[in-house]
Amino acid sequence: MILPKTNRLTSEQLAEITAIVCEFGCKIQPIVGAVRTIYAIVGDEREELMINRLEGLAFVDRIDRIQSPFKLMDKRSDLATHRIKAGGVTLGEELFVIAGACTIDPKNPNYFYETAAAVKEAGAHVLRGGVWKPRTNPYTFQGDVKSLYILMEASRRTGLPVDTEVMEDAHIKLALDAGVHSLQIGARNALNYSLLRSVGRAIAERATVVLLKRSIHMGPLNEFISAAEYIAAFGNPNVILCPRGTTPTLDGYRNHPDESITPLLKEKTWAPVVVDPSHSVGKAAYVPAAALAAVAYGADGLCIESHVDPSKGIGDDPKQAITPDVLAKTIRHAKQLWALSRGA
Amino acid sequence: MILPKTNRLTSEQLAEITAIVCEFGCKIQPIVGAVRTIYAIVGDEREELMINRLEGLAFVDRIDRIQSPFKLMDKRSDLATHRIKAGGVTLGEELFVIAGACTIDPKNPNYFYETAAAVKEAGAHVLRGGVWKPRTNPYTFQGDVKSLYILMEASRRTGLPVDTEVMEDAHIKLALDAGVHSLQIGARNALNYSLLRSVGRAIAERATVVLLKRSIHMGPLNEFISAAEYIAAFGNPNVILCPRGTTPTLDGYRNHPDESITPLLKEKTWAPVVVDPSHSVGKAAYVPAAALAAVAYGADGLCIESHVDPSKGIGDDPKQAITPDVLAKTIRHAKQLWALSRGA
Amino acid sequence: MILPKTNRLTSEQLAEITAIVCEFGCKIQPIVGAVRTIYAIVGDEREELMINRLEGLAFVDRIDRIQSPFKLMDKRSDLATHRIKAGGVTLGEELFVIAGACTIDPKNPNYFYETAAAVKEAGAHVLRGGVWKPRTNPYTFQGDVKSLYILMEASRRTGLPVDTEVMEDAHIKLALDAGVHSLQIGARNALNYSLLRSVGRAIAERATVVLLKRSIHMGPLNEFISAAEYIAAFGNPNVILCPRGTTPTLDGYRNHPDESITPLLKEKTWAPVVVDPSHSVGKAAYVPAAALAAVAYGADGLCIESHVDPSKGIGDDPKQAITPDVLAKTIRHAKQLWALSRGA
Amino acid sequence: MILPKTNRLTSEQLAEITAIVCEFGCKIQPIVGAVRTIYAIVGDEREELMINRLEGLAFVDRIDRIQSPFKLMDKRSDLATHRIKAGGVTLGEELFVIAGACTIDPKNPNYFYETAAAVKEAGAHVLRGGVWKPRTNPYTFQGDVKSLYILMEASRRTGLPVDTEVMEDAHIKLALDAGVHSLQIGARNALNYSLLRSVGRAIAERATVVLLKRSIHMGPLNEFISAAEYIAAFGNPNVILCPRGTTPTLDGYRNHPDESITPLLKEKTWAPVVVDPSHSVGKAAYVPAAALAAVAYGADGLCIESHVDPSKGIGDDPKQAITPDVLAKTIRHAKQLWALSRGA
Repeated sequence: MILPKTNRLTSEQLAEITAIVCEFGCKIQPIVGAVRTIYAIVGDEREELMINRLEGLAFVDRIDRIQSPFKLMDKRSDLATHRIKAGGVTLGEELFVIAGACTIDPKNPNYFYETAAAVKEAGAHVLRGGVWKPRTNPYTFQGDVKSLYILMEASRRTGLPVDTEVMEDAHIKLALDAGVHSLQIGARNALNYSLLRSVGRAIAERATVVLLKRSIHMGPLNEFISAAEYIAAFGNPNVILCPRGTTPTLDGYRNHPDESITPLLKEKTWAPVVVDPSHSVGKAAYVPAAALAAVAYGADGLCIESHVDPSKGIGDDPKQAITPDVLAKTIRHAKQLWALSRGA
Repeated sequence: MILPKTNRLTSEQLAEITAIVCEFGCKIQPIVGAVRTIYAIVGDEREELMINRLEGLAFVDRIDRIQSPFKLMDKRSDLATHRIKAGGVTLGEELFVIAGACTIDPKNPNYFYETAAAVKEAGAHVLRGGVWKPRTNPYTFQGDVKSLYILMEASRRTGLPVDTEVMEDAHIKLALDAGVHSLQIGARNALNYSLLRSVGRAIAERATVVLLKRSIHMGPLNEFISAAEYIAAFGNPNVILCPRGTTPTLDGYRNHPDESITPLLKEKTWAPVVVDPSHSVGKAAYVPAAALAAVAYGADGLCIESHVDPSKGIGDDPKQAITPDVLAKTIRHAKQLWALSRGA
Repeated sequence: MILPKTNRLTSEQLAEITAIVCEFGCKIQPIVGAVRTIYAIVGDEREELMINRLEGLAFVDRIDRIQSPFKLMDKRSDLATHRIKAGGVTLGEELFVIAGACTIDPKNPNYFYETAAAVKEAGAHVLRGGVWKPRTNPYTFQGDVKSLYILMEASRRTGLPVDTEVMEDAHIKLALDAGVHSLQIGARNALNYSLLRSVGRAIAERATVVLLKRSIHMGPLNEFISAAEYIAAFGNPNVILCPRGTTPTLDGYRNHPDESITPLLKEKTWAPVVVDPSHSVGKAAYVPAAALAAVAYGADGLCIESHVDPSKGIGDDPKQAITPDVLAKTIRHAKQLWALSRGA
Repeated sequence: MILPKTNRLTSEQLAEITAIVCEFGCKIQPIVGAVRTIYAIVGDEREELMINRLEGLAFVDRIDRIQSPFKLMDKRSDLATHRIKAGGVTLGEELFVIAGACTIDPKNPNYFYETAAAVKEAGAHVLRGGVWKPRTNPYTFQGDVKSLYILMEASRRTGLPVDTEVMEDAHIKLALDAGVHSLQIGARNALNYSLLRSVGRAIAERATVVLLKRSIHMGPLNEFISAAEYIAAFGNPNVILCPRGTTPTLDGYRNHPDESITPLLKEKTWAPVVVDPSHSVGKAAYVPAAALAAVAYGADGLCIESHVDPSKGIGDDPKQAITPDVLAKTIRHAKQLWALSRGA
């Protein structure tokens, strides 16, 4: 990682370092921060000669070579002071909440509009709504691009930024062109490195956020943080880690609740952790308890499925969405627990 | 389950029902409650003729035949209104706390005496102290009966009832004769049905409590509640379920934290759930968060390892015991969370 | 699934059924077999009216509506008599072997050429060689398109068809244009439905084969066979299921060997099962035993990493590749076990 | 471990070393082999002074201090050349087979007598028959001591030595007094150290064998081999390790088949490994394949449930017992695979 003396390299300076690293088979990837830009060396950065030549440049402050597989996401990296903002919240400073429907029903948009207004009222900062859906069975409803219009209309009506899952390059382009603020990588694609690269590249310049779900078989540290590292290495450091339940499933829940990995993640990475209790437990009745447990373990936020009338929802909502009044109460309790456990 | 019209059968009445069930190869097991005694039929109670004859007795109110493998521990059983008391607390009514050392050091009893006083001060209701220890390696310290004297002396000094683990019939007798109030069945013995039977029989008449640890491979429901059913079926319904982490271990913790099974257990059984965060996470720094998560999931209590100077402890204490001041703060927060999530 | 009376619908007939299913929001997907073509209805095929109208067409023999989520891959589907051929072998009739390097080293192509000749000599039917590699760490070697040339050159020299992993649409096009015969979907992408669809579409017309690795957290049945169903539903029924070890890892192996799922798969699907012992156990010394165990469980074939000099390999080869002489002996034993357990 | 210069210490010599180790808080445990007896030091054997004094004794050849938690069961221990014999077989030299019923039905002894004759005919070396049964539910059949008579009568009729499970000290005494040749420790008691000690002590002098089932959550190495070490440390080195399936269960099987741990065990311990495929897969149809897979992984023997008419069996037999003709064929194939994979 190259840290320049100024906030940003000039194009001549960038060309100069690019020429050096190219000689050693590496590339330069700028990581654009709010104030300053730093420059990752993608490739084998252990070449002493290359490092020496870069360190000798007048406009280079220093080369950050941490002993970690996570050059950007590690707690000890130069990026560790980076703060992610979404929905008016600086993550880590107050409880952050994403809420909304698993899947937008393109035939009944009013449910989503009503849900959007209600989750805003309940205290959510970002509105989620599924446009495209990965489904185990190829013959079930896979989402509909029409829902993208509904999502953006809900954003316009409520003023909330929106989050939706993308599964391929075409989705990324459509979502970003429409103005989606947060792109979600689902659990099934958390190791789809081609997609992670595309997301990293595509949204680097737009200050958008990536909500990276944990794949349901991932060990807590290496694979998960490395997936975030892919996104950051290709240009976007605004990655939020989202545990959402793992295997083996706990008989009675949809998955094995995994909010307890939060402290383990936070020992390794500066990335904020936003837990999804809805997918963890998979049943509305258990969601408030699981949400509090996540805050107890130090989560920075929650991603919760909510619907004004869950029985009318599609996708996972009939089973796991909570109503906005339960959401409001859960957020209230979660904020009190936040104050309790962090304030003391 | 036979429910008599009176609080207790006379010896003639007991002889009469015993004679009937014997004809069908069954036995009668009295379950002595604080006010009334009920009588479990141990064996195949599905014989219609036997049931009909029992129902015809003048002193029998009714025969409770629930469709559950847990005839006594099921939420729908007649025992469901039973309340367990320990250390002055009626479980379920307020947060219940067991605290103390993993293993009493027989060579340095003062650490345990000081710890006992400190955990009482911090708010614990029952004092735990390991006398006999199951150890993976046959050549490591396996506990010492001398520690039993230290345990009882600490009980006398503090006025706290005490809990210790038993591994065989000889331990049960020694512990009960010394006046131990709560017998703990460790995770390795949670499926040792001979021991469960012995514990059930031995302490039925003494109103003592059994703290049943969850075996680390148990599914949440059937095996765990069935183990409790063994103890109750052989005479003691004062069984507390204690999740303490499971496998596969979560890389970074000692085990996979399993406080999240609490709501699943409570859907099936009336038994109180007291979570052991110390063994779940296995490292002192993570214990307070795990304790709060347990309360978030609805646990009735906590079982926490504490030591005035963990580095001087033996067994698991150097790694996972928290100091009494951290314990006091954890109890305070846990009580506030209890009020928050149950009061609302 | 629409089964016509003839081996193939005319374009007029296809247009007619397409028009009908479109009215109900469905699409038609031809599945091209060696002799006849059948036509899958993609979408909700439960509409009685739609089915009735299709059944009424003069050129339709019958509509196959099996009660299974796997309309094509189910053992009871009309496709169940389909046989897959690769490398001169009809799978199921004799032991099928894929062997070769985990990763082709573009700087030292001779190792791969020598390995290719040696695995052919040892009895392999298809040559594997990794061109693009999914890697946990974004900064490690991710493969090189130059290796595609080396792979095809090895194919030309040995006459063996070749297999390589694809991770994105660009890889599919490059591999198929170069003449790769078998596309591999790696474990990390086994639930990447966009990629599964692309593979299904792209190779439908070329009679190429897909080797679908099992994702390391997949349950044995639903998710794995559904992933194969995606590929078939989008046009290619030549899918081979490849178990390659799962989580939680067995301490001592790379993964938890999962050849034992073979009989469970075969109860549900007609798809051939080719086990990869190299990734399961992750260490060369254990591979021959794991290969035999796979055949014991009824596997149709083996996918084994081999290298003429494993210490000179890259990727996983230094740890898990076996030498061609060990491969030859393993194949010989596996064939004898095949004869023993199937012949008796 | 003390290795004397003679085959056995005199009582005076034994008293002398006992006096020395007692000074250091240790005990002496003789391990009686077929030819010579060695003497384990139970306790902390790291005291240099104690070792020096023992080494100085004229009748002591040497003190074996291996760097392993398994002082007796480790491959590098002096016991590693020890060979276990049962049913006329020296384990490791030819395929060893235990077969018989899960549970003897005391009301229908003829089934067991017929099964005993049939499994002998099929090639089994030891006859298994369950007398006492650990059951999840306290109200189901828990075995009957009358079955012990049936078991011994079957032994007398067939000439086969017999194996049965013991769960408490009373069972050990009854079984040994009756003449049972092999005591089985079930999976639920594999960490019941009190029982392991009792078994070690009780059968040390009788040259009987212990079949130690793997607990279903055990990691492959430390806990399993340590449990065997308990038995050996208290006097009996004739311990056979028996994997029998683990958790998490593989959807479709009773457990997760674990024959694949065999090579991992054999890297650490000299103890023979006899796999139980019946409990692993839990369904008769899968047992022959699982048995072959065990031999493929290097198992020294098999423990298989068989019944002349499985539908008339009790316990697990209706589901998982194979008939004697299937057993005969399985043994024949297993022997051929043994010859194939070990001979080459």
